[in-house]
Amino acid sequence: MVERRRKSAGGMPVAPAAQPAVAPIHEGRVRAVVDALLPSVDGGRFAPKRIAGEPVLVEAHCFADGHDRLRAVLSWRQLGDPESFEVEMKARVNDEWTAEFTPPAPGRYQYTVTAWVDHFESWRHDLTRRDDYNDIRIALQVGAGLVEAASRRARADDAAALSTWAALLRGTADDTKGRSDAAAMKAIALDPARASMAARYADRRFAASATRELVADRKRAQFSTWYELFPRSAAGEPKRHGTFRDVEARLHYVAELGFDVLYLPPIHPIGRINRKGANNALTAGSEDVGSPWAIGSIEGGHKDILPQLGTLQDFKSLVGKARESGIDIALDIAFQCAPDHPYVRSHPEWFRHRPDGSVQYAENPPKKYQDIYPFDFESDDWPNLWEELKSVMVFWISQGVRIFRVDNPHTKAFAFWEWVIGEIKRAYPDVIFLAEAFTRPKVMHRLAKLGFTQSYTYFTWRTSKQQLMEYFTELTQAPGREYFRPNVWPNTPDILQEALHTGVRAVYAARLVLAATLSANYGIYGPAFELMESTPREPGSEEYRDSEKYQLRAWAIDRPDSLWPLLARVNRIRRDNPALQSDHNLTFCAVDNDQLIAYAKHDVASQNIVLTVVNLDPYNPQSGWVVLDIGALGIDPEQPYQVHDLVSDQRYQWRGARNFVMLDPQRMPAHVFRVRRHLRSERDFDYFL
Amino acid sequence: MVERRRKSAGGMPVAPAAQPAVAPIHEGRVRAVVDALLPSVDGGRFAPKRIAGEPVLVEAHCFADGHDRLRAVLSWRQLGDPESFEVEMKARVNDEWTAEFTPPAPGRYQYTVTAWVDHFESWRHDLTRRDDYNDIRIALQVGAGLVEAASRRARADDAAALSTWAALLRGTADDTKGRSDAAAMKAIALDPARASMAARYADRRFAASATRELVADRKRAQFSTWYELFPRSAAGEPKRHGTFRDVEARLHYVAELGFDVLYLPPIHPIGRINRKGANNALTAGSEDVGSPWAIGSIEGGHKDILPQLGTLQDFKSLVGKARESGIDIALDIAFQCAPDHPYVRSHPEWFRHRPDGSVQYAENPPKKYQDIYPFDFESDDWPNLWEELKSVMVFWISQGVRIFRVDNPHTKAFAFWEWVIGEIKRAYPDVIFLAEAFTRPKVMHRLAKLGFTQSYTYFTWRTSKQQLMEYFTELTQAPGREYFRPNVWPNTPDILQEALHTGVRAVYAARLVLAATLSANYGIYGPAFELMESTPREPGSEEYRDSEKYQLRAWAIDRPDSLWPLLARVNRIRRDNPALQSDHNLTFCAVDNDQLIAYAKHDVASQNIVLTVVNLDPYNPQSGWVVLDIGALGIDPEQPYQVHDLVSDQRYQWRGARNFVMLDPQRMPAHVFRVRRHLRSERDFDYFL
Repeated sequence: MVERRRKSAGGMPVAPAAQPAVAPIHEGRVRAVVDALLPSVDGGRFAPKRIAGEPVLVEAHCFADGHDRLRAVLSWRQLGDPESFEVEMKARVNDEWTAEFTPPAPGRYQYTVTAWVDHFESWRHDLTRRDDYNDIRIALQVGAGLVEAASRRARADDAAALSTWAALLRGTADDTKGRSDAAAMKAIALDPARASMAARYADRRFAASATRELVADRKRAQFSTWYELFPRSAAGEPKRHGTFRDVEARLHYVAELGFDVLYLPPIHPIGRINRKGANNALTAGSEDVGSPWAIGSIEGGHKDILPQLGTLQDFKSLVGKARESGIDIALDIAFQCAPDHPYVRSHPEWFRHRPDGSVQYAENPPKKYQDIYPFDFESDDWPNLWEELKSVMVFWISQGVRIFRVDNPHTKAFAFWEWVIGEIKRAYPDVIFLAEAFTRPKVMHRLAKLGFTQSYTYFTWRTSKQQLMEYFTELTQAPGREYFRPNVWPNTPDILQEALHTGVRAVYAARLVLAATLSANYGIYGPAFELMESTPREPGSEEYRDSEKYQLRAWAIDRPDSLWPLLARVNRIRRDNPALQSDHNLTFCAVDNDQLIAYAKHDVASQNIVLTVVNLDPYNPQSGWVVLDIGALGIDPEQPYQVHDLVSDQRYQWRGARNFVMLDPQRMPAHVFRVRRHLRSERDFDYFL
Repeated sequence: MVERRRKSAGGMPVAPAAQPAVAPIHEGRVRAVVDALLPSVDGGRFAPKRIAGEPVLVEAHCFADGHDRLRAVLSWRQLGDPESFEVEMKARVNDEWTAEFTPPAPGRYQYTVTAWVDHFESWRHDLTRRDDYNDIRIALQVGAGLVEAASRRARADDAAALSTWAALLRGTADDTKGRSDAAAMKAIALDPARASMAARYADRRFAASATRELVADRKRAQFSTWYELFPRSAAGEPKRHGTFRDVEARLHYVAELGFDVLYLPPIHPIGRINRKGANNALTAGSEDVGSPWAIGSIEGGHKDILPQLGTLQDFKSLVGKARESGIDIALDIAFQCAPDHPYVRSHPEWFRHRPDGSVQYAENPPKKYQDIYPFDFESDDWPNLWEELKSVMVFWISQGVRIFRVDNPHTKAFAFWEWVIGEIKRAYPDVIFLAEAFTRPKVMHRLAKLGFTQSYTYFTWRTSKQQLMEYFTELTQAPGREYFRPNVWPNTPDILQEALHTGVRAVYAARLVLAATLSANYGIYGPAFELMESTPREPGSEEYRDSEKYQLRAWAIDRPDSLWPLLARVNRIRRDNPALQSDHNLTFCAVDNDQLIAYAKHDVASQNIVLTVVNLDPYNPQSGWVVLDIGALGIDPEQPYQVHDLVSDQRYQWRGARNFVMLDPQRMPAHVFRVRRHLRSERDFDYFL
């Protein structure tokens, strides 16, 4: 039954509370529908991600019963800010309405589409089609009533103007009293200036609306170039433990290579109980430095610094110096404890215990990780655990950190991440969280929906042309692109992917170019990458031999065969070409050779087009015909155009959709072409865009 | 901040009520996620549609953080019924879980997927992989604790058995006291019978769940064959007004032709004020009978019967007799009034009024429909209007009617339909509503989502091969198929589609076969259809000349050229072949001739396969090679199989995927083949399935 009558009607059957899928109807006169509001993730359960300063296209299906005219507006505001803004929406086709807004700054935004059956617009629309004198006469009276109603809703000055107009329509004003000239009266009634004033005071009593939220991040969330290094190996000497000062000295190198995020594995005191030795040996010698991810010892926990690295002051100095070079220091958030972490004593209730009273270490039977105690997210004391973990991040934010790479977030409760990221970003909207979850697809997507700004991907294992095309089509075109921002890595301290075991330079170069041009966010673990470190712990393993995870390493970063010049070149190309700074603009091109992969990225606003072609065969020259969708790129099929290889600085003249490419991996396995459309005549060969 | 601590923490920033997209977290220990529950329409906002007695496949993504084992169950119940049922779900791949249930009777059902991190299952899984004696010893103690906890949740008899088991695991029972045989103890711990008992009492405190609802209809909602006739023309004489008794006499004909729904245009008193004359003339003569859709006069309104048709008793007799022939009488629900409808006087507040005090008639300037007053769904008295309109349907339901064809539902408020259909189906779950909305796609879909059981479609205007293939692929494969059940009509009293103006027999035959085999629900407006009535009011118009909408017609239903034998044959084929009784099983087949359209329907349960081929050219024989997906149909590519044309009763032997077809429209423009797979040897030619 109609809810409004429930009390008075008495005795009519009322569904039990659990039954109705539909909320009780308090207002049956809402005739408009707002549906399919975009952007949207899972019907509004999660927030899509955008970039502050870039326009957001909002779309919705708006319609009503019958043939009346509809109006729809988009209103938006930054959460926490009382001020909101309103934009008139436009009907496209098929009841689809659109409008845009641009979030001015990083933060969380709420946007609402409101639609209503607009009797004033309907009246106006009908009036244009009326020609019968009597009909117009009555319509003028109807219109006068609508304008009077608008006048009652209007600000004082507008109210007076609207009243005057209503009187004209009624024929009670001097100007129109007794006039029977239908055409002239119709013209007064259809006056556009007056109509737009009346429209400002529409009757929205029976409006329908739908609301969503989105997260606007700073630009670096979408376009970032990461370099990971172990500070303790930054000394450049085999025996000396590196320090934050050594890292400071390395900043120049990192900046010159074009990186803007420097990510450090955990910098905290390292547990001594059950410490692992070199190459993950079960027992450590007295010289062994242990794994940075076995956090906590008598020297402190997640808010403390390993004394060998330096002081908090040293760390803050590093953060400041990095910022001067345009580099964000990213810290590793690994929420787990070594057995001697202070939390184990002070908060035993945050860990699971075995029947013998010992704390449950991490295990995956029959494997045991006795140097690591996971937190128990089913602890009865979960609220205090959550608050403490949040305080760890707040602590480092207070030291100037704005990027966190979160270790294995998929082994901590989802609800915690949603809460803590929401809390942190409410206070610090410029913070970026990278989820290091190499796990099942739905779990990775869930973490991204919950709020992680960027996510590691399967790129590391996608090596064939077909794998790369399928995976990046999914990443850039499937619905997940609304919330899942890929950050792709050719290597990490945990993953020396099998193709890299060859140590072949062309493999490293190809993987680098693929990462840097397929994805706007990418990173490498260095100097292992540029020095082409390639020996696994044992054949077939993805672990590095003599991994920095368990020991110090001294890297000869100035080795003449280093890939650093290519890194610097590729990162420079990324900075110079807006097309490479976002993900959704990727299109693969057909090539008649399965060893050649080609794709174009097109930034419409700056008219920047980059075409990348990579030879996936590291041993043999490969050639083929690349097919560009020149129509979509706005290239005249009859005119020549220039492709400029930004890696080799060579230029080629192409024409039409199909063009020949050959790549010799011994020289360089990739072209990164800037495509320059011809702007003037074909004789006038200097003028390319 | 964590909601649970809000009160005690004091002074921490709390988002204003409007802000959080996420509900406050009252329980942070829920680690499981239930997501992407199917079937589902708009994330649960609307109910998908199914058929009582047919299994419903329920799917969900269920997963948790970490590596613990998950359990998931499906529970379901009929709304209004306190009893609920539970089914264990199975993990397919990629964290996708499934289970089935079968709604036993028409009604609305609620189904819930519940998933939780199952420590007992995790313990059991880990135990299978343990081989270290000490680890097993500790694991037995852990298991004993879990079994004791299950015992505390168990029914008395099970509780005792579980306690005994726990004692065995602890080593406190006589049988196991002091035993140190790890393998034997592991076997006791992994005992499957005891494990399944413990699983019945799982710890679900931290379970996650998601709930949806669906509507289960009776079979006729999905498979129905409609015949529309005007009772007033059922006399078969030019001047005599037909009656319900005449319709009763016509039942034999309708049943013989194989129809199971007989739909009557409105049967109520017809307004006299502004009554339309023959061919929609603005003024009616004294003999003119008016339009049945101009409802209401001094003789009554929507709950009354036009006296010329007979009495309520006559009507009930017709409904009863029809039911004896397996035919549902469908009534027309046209919620609008003639100017002399009793509502206009008794409830002036239900209509809009013009400034001169007159009631606003329907109009689409400059067109006026002065014989029709629409209800004003923005009336302040909308709750009473809604109740009254509902009472109209309840009145006819009380007379035995169970199917309503609703006239122009898209010109009444959406909220009203959702409410009234929900109300009616809660009390009478076997009622079927057909939405007669020939309007914009999103409006048609909305009405179907709101609850309409079946919907008219654009079939009437889809005549080319490409149009038909695109439209029926959308209808049967796109997400709308969860709620939008097409009911396709070659003609209606309002639509004499242009192709029918030719009067060519092959056009009528082809449109009939297309409707009857593409869609499980179809209907015709007769006897105009089978008598191939083809003259439009004027050239290019879709209105019939001398339309029954405005005058009596006498139909010579026994004319020798009537299409009735083909109708009877086609409807018989539909009844005999389950493949033609549902929609989602449609697959189009390639044919190398644009005038030939071919499609297969496959009912897996009954192994029934029907292949239809239609020649869309009504003038010339057309031939081509039809490609069947024989792999999907389970046909051996090496064996011959038989196709049996159920229209002509001819049989052909085919082999492989590509076979030749020729159709001469002068004889018959369609094949409706039953495809009989060969079951035994190729010599044994009698045995086809």
